[in-house]
Amino acid sequence: MTLKDYTVLFSKHLESNYPNQKPHNLYEPMQYILELGGKRIRPVLTLIAADGFGGTSDKALSAAMAVEVFHNFTLLHDDIMDQAPIRRGKPTVHQLWNTNTAILSGDVMMIKAFQYINVYESDKFTALTQLLSKTAVEVCEGQQYDMDFETKSEVTLTAYREMIRLKTAVLLGAALQMGAIVADAGISDQHKIYDMGVLMGLAFQMQDDYLDTFGNAETFGKQIGGDIVENKKTWLVLKTLELADDRDKQVLTTLFNGYSEVDKIEKVKDLFKKYSVDILIQKEMEHYTLAAEQLLNELPLQSQSKIVLETLMQQLKSRKH
Amino acid sequence: MTLKDYTVLFSKHLESNYPNQKPHNLYEPMQYILELGGKRIRPVLTLIAADGFGGTSDKALSAAMAVEVFHNFTLLHDDIMDQAPIRRGKPTVHQLWNTNTAILSGDVMMIKAFQYINVYESDKFTALTQLLSKTAVEVCEGQQYDMDFETKSEVTLTAYREMIRLKTAVLLGAALQMGAIVADAGISDQHKIYDMGVLMGLAFQMQDDYLDTFGNAETFGKQIGGDIVENKKTWLVLKTLELADDRDKQVLTTLFNGYSEVDKIEKVKDLFKKYSVDILIQKEMEHYTLAAEQLLNELPLQSQSKIVLETLMQQLKSRKH
Repeated sequence: MTLKDYTVLFSKHLESNYPNQKPHNLYEPMQYILELGGKRIRPVLTLIAADGFGGTSDKALSAAMAVEVFHNFTLLHDDIMDQAPIRRGKPTVHQLWNTNTAILSGDVMMIKAFQYINVYESDKFTALTQLLSKTAVEVCEGQQYDMDFETKSEVTLTAYREMIRLKTAVLLGAALQMGAIVADAGISDQHKIYDMGVLMGLAFQMQDDYLDTFGNAETFGKQIGGDIVENKKTWLVLKTLELADDRDKQVLTTLFNGYSEVDKIEKVKDLFKKYSVDILIQKEMEHYTLAAEQLLNELPLQSQSKIVLETLMQQLKSRKH
Repeated sequence: MTLKDYTVLFSKHLESNYPNQKPHNLYEPMQYILELGGKRIRPVLTLIAADGFGGTSDKALSAAMAVEVFHNFTLLHDDIMDQAPIRRGKPTVHQLWNTNTAILSGDVMMIKAFQYINVYESDKFTALTQLLSKTAVEVCEGQQYDMDFETKSEVTLTAYREMIRLKTAVLLGAALQMGAIVADAGISDQHKIYDMGVLMGLAFQMQDDYLDTFGNAETFGKQIGGDIVENKKTWLVLKTLELADDRDKQVLTTLFNGYSEVDKIEKVKDLFKKYSVDILIQKEMEHYTLAAEQLLNELPLQSQSKIVLETLMQQLKSRKH
């Protein structure tokens, strides 16, 4: 199976499993956000891992649903917290319904995510549930650190890395490990594929940060420089603060603390370029991707699965949105 | 053990198990809301059921924690949705921190609730997790129906009963069944004690509705008539609409649809009394309590546990707050 085959397999399964339940005001927002689409990277990782360890992707579809529904729950609640009016070009749930419905629909999505695992026999059910709940707690912790960083003056690169590990990367690791669990992989291989997913996730999040500032407005699909406008302490900012001389450090800090300024985006970008952090972030991403590829080579996966995972890594690295 | 012994046992366990974790902004609200207190009815039900079926309440403490933390998660998110400034005489979490922190802390509490079950062996873990997730979905559905009813003109008594069954009663049933699962009770006994809990829960919620309108302000602890002010479609309202002549029905509907009116509470109360729904609701509660007691008699529980459950039912029935 190719990467596209996996995406189609998952999408068809998702479409035939929307919760057509009452009360409608609770379940329609769930279907709405799931129908907005997205790259379906996480559930596809689950399916590839299951095939790779000699299981079948069909048997991993429920675990993949758990991962995707959980991910969309986080998007739903994050959109409330960010007061985001738009997701994937459509109104967000709290915008189209209201905040209360968005809170409650998110809550039920999170529980539903766990319920997709009910189809597995007792031992797998236990392993999958405990991995998903551990990961879910970590994602919440990452989101809290992200919010804390907005008002914190001193954030280290180490703290930033830990934040994106929790907020983004562990779910990619868990998605792969869940496929491995369904396919009865041994525990050390489970951990290895989890670690590979975390490395992929770190590169993925840094690519997000990079594109937000240095992407192409047309292919990126949203305004360039959004993170700068919101004073987000991305890797680009933190690395510049580490490298800059005292004067430039002062300039950057002032730009981020002061009121919004004409040309703020351009001024910040110039500073990034002065200290080459646009190149350094790509080196850092490359470092994570190489480490992920190293683990991929060591893993006893079927060769076709390795090819698909390698393809996915290259696609994520060269993506423009 | 007496009812008080169970409450003390649980409270001590809770106090020694607060999550002293980072990030603080995520976990402090969890401890804060749990420390606000409350009657601890649900976790105590879990402990009594475990002893009653020949297990030990000590082994049921983690399941009891799951139930109480889940319940407090619902309070936290409900308070956001109701924009409630005060809970148990203290500021609510979204008031003391902010809405985003309240959403995210609630999310992590829900996942943590499931994680308390991790201590049980695989078969019990599966049964407990699946019961809690089924119940959690139902509680969300009940909350959504409750919100839907606010803007729905025609609500039947049957729909109301189903709403309070989902929103309130199933969690009492699940709390008891979780204790039964920990104590290895047979499946038919598990279902019977669950049904008993649901009946107790229905009576419990109707007592809440009754006290909100006919309670004593001093012992009730909050303003009398709050439900009337908020135009809540409680059993009292729905039963009056069922019994009233066309003219009184019109009066009541106008009072509930119009702008707030001086003496609204007194006028509505007079209508309730005219049709004796203050007495009828007590008969309805008595009906549920008797049915619960019938099931209690049939259950093969240890005699001391039966006495404690009977005491609890009487206390809930005669409670003033």
